[in-house]
Amino acid sequence: MTTRVIVLNGGSSSGKSGIVRCLQAVLPDPWLAAAIDSLIEAMPASLQESASGIDVGADGSVSIGAEFRTLEAAWREGVAAMARAGARVVVDDVFLGGAESQQRWQRALDGLDVLWVGVRCAGGAAAAREIARGDRVPGMAASQADLVHRGVVYDLEVDTTHTESLECARAIAARVG
Amino acid sequence: MTTRVIVLNGGSSSGKSGIVRCLQAVLPDPWLAAAIDSLIEAMPASLQESASGIDVGADGSVSIGAEFRTLEAAWREGVAAMARAGARVVVDDVFLGGAESQQRWQRALDGLDVLWVGVRCAGGAAAAREIARGDRVPGMAASQADLVHRGVVYDLEVDTTHTESLECARAIAARVG
Amino acid sequence: MTTRVIVLNGGSSSGKSGIVRCLQAVLPDPWLAAAIDSLIEAMPASLQESASGIDVGADGSVSIGAEFRTLEAAWREGVAAMARAGARVVVDDVFLGGAESQQRWQRALDGLDVLWVGVRCAGGAAAAREIARGDRVPGMAASQADLVHRGVVYDLEVDTTHTESLECARAIAARVG
Amino acid sequence: MTTRVIVLNGGSSSGKSGIVRCLQAVLPDPWLAAAIDSLIEAMPASLQESASGIDVGADGSVSIGAEFRTLEAAWREGVAAMARAGARVVVDDVFLGGAESQQRWQRALDGLDVLWVGVRCAGGAAAAREIARGDRVPGMAASQADLVHRGVVYDLEVDTTHTESLECARAIAARVG
Repeated sequence: MTTRVIVLNGGSSSGKSGIVRCLQAVLPDPWLAAAIDSLIEAMPASLQESASGIDVGADGSVSIGAEFRTLEAAWREGVAAMARAGARVVVDDVFLGGAESQQRWQRALDGLDVLWVGVRCAGGAAAAREIARGDRVPGMAASQADLVHRGVVYDLEVDTTHTESLECARAIAARVG
Repeated sequence: MTTRVIVLNGGSSSGKSGIVRCLQAVLPDPWLAAAIDSLIEAMPASLQESASGIDVGADGSVSIGAEFRTLEAAWREGVAAMARAGARVVVDDVFLGGAESQQRWQRALDGLDVLWVGVRCAGGAAAAREIARGDRVPGMAASQADLVHRGVVYDLEVDTTHTESLECARAIAARVG
Repeated sequence: MTTRVIVLNGGSSSGKSGIVRCLQAVLPDPWLAAAIDSLIEAMPASLQESASGIDVGADGSVSIGAEFRTLEAAWREGVAAMARAGARVVVDDVFLGGAESQQRWQRALDGLDVLWVGVRCAGGAAAAREIARGDRVPGMAASQADLVHRGVVYDLEVDTTHTESLECARAIAARVG
Repeated sequence: MTTRVIVLNGGSSSGKSGIVRCLQAVLPDPWLAAAIDSLIEAMPASLQESASGIDVGADGSVSIGAEFRTLEAAWREGVAAMARAGARVVVDDVFLGGAESQQRWQRALDGLDVLWVGVRCAGGAAAAREIARGDRVPGMAASQADLVHRGVVYDLEVDTTHTESLECARAIAARVG
């Protein structure tokens, strides 16, 4: 079977988007990026900081509202349809619900060959990178570092704490069928 | 029937993305934006300036390659699936193929209630805005201003030459069922 | 005498930065842009939303703290030094203090040939563009539209309400000595 | 004496801008960032890719033209004036001319207490990060990694190959008088 979808799951500032760009550079076929951050940017401004949308607390904790969930569910169906229509897709997501988030993706991607990848980064390193980026609420990285991996099953895990994104991408690419 | 998809078609620098943000602000329900520019950003860097992807000439003319077309076709299926799964979607596209581009969208969106909107802008005004933006190859706006509307059938046309995006968005919103 | 500095003053979303890019395109010599927005980006994140830095209220009103003022004063001296060292500079500022803001610039730019330009935009149009941009706190445009021009004396005024940035830039360029 | 200026010198993708943001976060006083990348953005689009401005070859090599040099020299005077007027400034530059570039800064900053910092990153790691960023011409990182340090004298050197930006910033902050 041929891998149609790569799902990367990791906390904020764990290095997922850098790995996505490296995967796009090293994989021989063209792969589309589907990032949760791009979904959020595609939502109305009013949902980007509200109770019905996404709400980032002063400590970096994230709450998700009902309208956000509806659009997110539709997005997963859209990603699956793109893959079924012939695109290769790299998903870059943050499983705030752990195993439950994975199950939602599994239902949407049913019948497609998926490579599940955990992107780990030690909480301290992720928190340091969050400060270096300067565009995230401090605390998100630390609060998500472990949370998002709870109960999630992977084909492969990479760790960006001491490894460059490009090297992680090469390890993932070697597993793409 | 209820409008599930709004398709905005217009040339580069005609003001589509501003209208999208205004639509998201004035429509009572949350609408997702699906922009051709975001699709391009989601592609590998290698496709963003190449014969197999998208190629912008020194005069601003745009050529589309086979691999780009494959991903673009999958994207249309993905947008349709998002709408079928319950999302309201505003598409922001540039119909370089005129009527043929519209037919591709019509096939993908089959069975959905779609509002087709032409976004006009006089070539001179679009070319002036292209310079003011500073992030586009000069010439795209002028070369696309008429081209993208050839043979396309609309429910509604707006013209940003002398009308603010917000006013255009209100005219469109009034037609959303 | 030769114009070394063009100072554009106008409210948020009045179209100043588009005029700056058009000026850079139409003027025969290279001109450097010096924008208050770039100064703010160059400040520590902690000053960008705090009592000692800049504080944008829920209604879009802006308060400036002591540490912000210190860096802003140093920035004006830096801009003046760049012009004295041979650069041509277009300043893009928001005179929240009206005539007093202009006096601060006059003192800093003493001895340099300066072209003072007021950038007007009707409050309603600026507020509409603020929504279309999607990256500003709603209300800033309306609250600043008149405020920033109080007591300020110009060599030239342009109005973007019904005129493209490029045309405004050409009117300004015609006055550059 | 009190440190008024920190000059960071390092090749493309060596991690300078991340260190700047961390310095702004850890230093008790507010520090302004003055980055060569921001200077380039402030120049006319026509200088950003031309013989008289900056020219990036297909292999990532960088050529600098006469008009670019004139504006760059004025910028150094502007940075010095900001520091003399009371701002603390972190400069983030790429010494393409090695020791000669440092001498230009030394002349401009004459009389100010400056902390000179070399930002090292192994060529392979910088090249990998260049791919992960996705917004740089491949080859710049590798070609500049050693070149920019030739003949330059530092108060302190940091190496981002295996050390987070935040830790580098703390080492620098400990040397700020």
